Amino acid sequence: MSGQRSMLRQSSHQFTVNTRGRGIYEITQPVMEWVEKSSIKSGLLTLHLQHTSASLLIQENADPEVRRDLERFFSRLVPDGDPLFEHTAEGEDDMPAHVRTALTAVNLSIPIMASRPALGTWQGIYLWEHRHHAHTRRVAAHIIGE
Amino acid sequence: MSGQRSMLRQSSHQFTVNTRGRGIYEITQPVMEWVEKSSIKSGLLTLHLQHTSASLLIQENADPEVRRDLERFFSRLVPDGDPLFEHTAEGEDDMPAHVRTALTAVNLSIPIMASRPALGTWQGIYLWEHRHHAHTRRVAAHIIGE
Amino acid sequence: MSGQRSMLRQSSHQFTVNTRGRGIYEITQPVMEWVEKSSIKSGLLTLHLQHTSASLLIQENADPEVRRDLERFFSRLVPDGDPLFEHTAEGEDDMPAHVRTALTAVNLSIPIMASRPALGTWQGIYLWEHRHHAHTRRVAAHIIGE
Repeated sequence: MSGQRSMLRQSSHQFTVNTRGRGIYEITQPVMEWVEKSSIKSGLLTLHLQHTSASLLIQENADPEVRRDLERFFSRLVPDGDPLFEHTAEGEDDMPAHVRTALTAVNLSIPIMASRPALGTWQGIYLWEHRHHAHTRRVAAHIIGE
Repeated sequence: MSGQRSMLRQSSHQFTVNTRGRGIYEITQPVMEWVEKSSIKSGLLTLHLQHTSASLLIQENADPEVRRDLERFFSRLVPDGDPLFEHTAEGEDDMPAHVRTALTAVNLSIPIMASRPALGTWQGIYLWEHRHHAHTRRVAAHIIGE
Repeated sequence: MSGQRSMLRQSSHQFTVNTRGRGIYEITQPVMEWVEKSSIKSGLLTLHLQHTSASLLIQENADPEVRRDLERFFSRLVPDGDPLFEHTAEGEDDMPAHVRTALTAVNLSIPIMASRPALGTWQGIYLWEHRHHAHTRRVAAHIIGE
């Protein structure tokens, strides 16, 4: 898989994800399709969420209970309306959304092998909306390889 | 943005950030300037913090309350001097600093578009110092693109 | 370190890590050896763990107390058998393992400088097994550079 130096190239894209409020939204399919369309067989995929109150997450894709329990745990760990927070002008869920984002991730870096992101059997790619209202979220994507 | 394979190149750098103790320090400006100087218009930026008691963070750049509340939340979640900790020889804030680092991130990967890191409107890049004393922190940076 | 565009190339690998149950396992050595064997002197290393109940972690490599305290903190923060969780069919440690994974990371991105990952003096690369039973864990690795 090495040594094909002359064939290296890159491609960029911006994904738009419309959320319907707090929850975990799978984006594996559109990401897979974009990687396939790039015709890059081996390389590196990077996803960067351009927001500070939502996250990118790699988690189990089999049992929806896992996502419900993740949400339940984070709701208890970072309660909406916590009197600790000073930044409350944008709503009781705003500062908790920033904290959840800091506790998780906004970037993902995944090798591409055999024309696909090298996800494990049980891994899916998710956007985790932390705000209660619906939002339009943007994910900057980059792929480099051959 | 794809297919310009023959123009791909890379560049590396090491940033030094002098902190004045626990707090969140913006580093967006020097990172932007270095990306611009590299003349890479599209590609991938990677930042890696070479320490285990501070973090790299992408967070809201508008309201300083957000950073104060983040600090307040993490101080409550991982209290200094927690009797749970065995590793106390380097001070009451040392083990909490390692835990905060594990809960956040030391790497960031951000696509470059239009000669700039593809940050959202409200996103800034920060170094979060978790120790109470001033430290000199080093960030290894890499850019690849065309 | 820039401008050597014609020499850029990439390489991929899959590491296998056999864990003996919950704990933090150092993988710095095999990663270093693979980077060295690639003959890439400067570039970017990416590691992606192909699981949702274990993490990749960069932490202190000097004092084993730090890893014991990290484990102790996470065991208290995300207790096994927490009645909050609905997803319990796979054991009391299964859902806590997913939560710990969400709170930490499954990807690492580290610049390569002088033929080595640009780790700080005290940084090591670890796989954090969150399940109590032994597991075979796979890490997809990618390097690009010159």
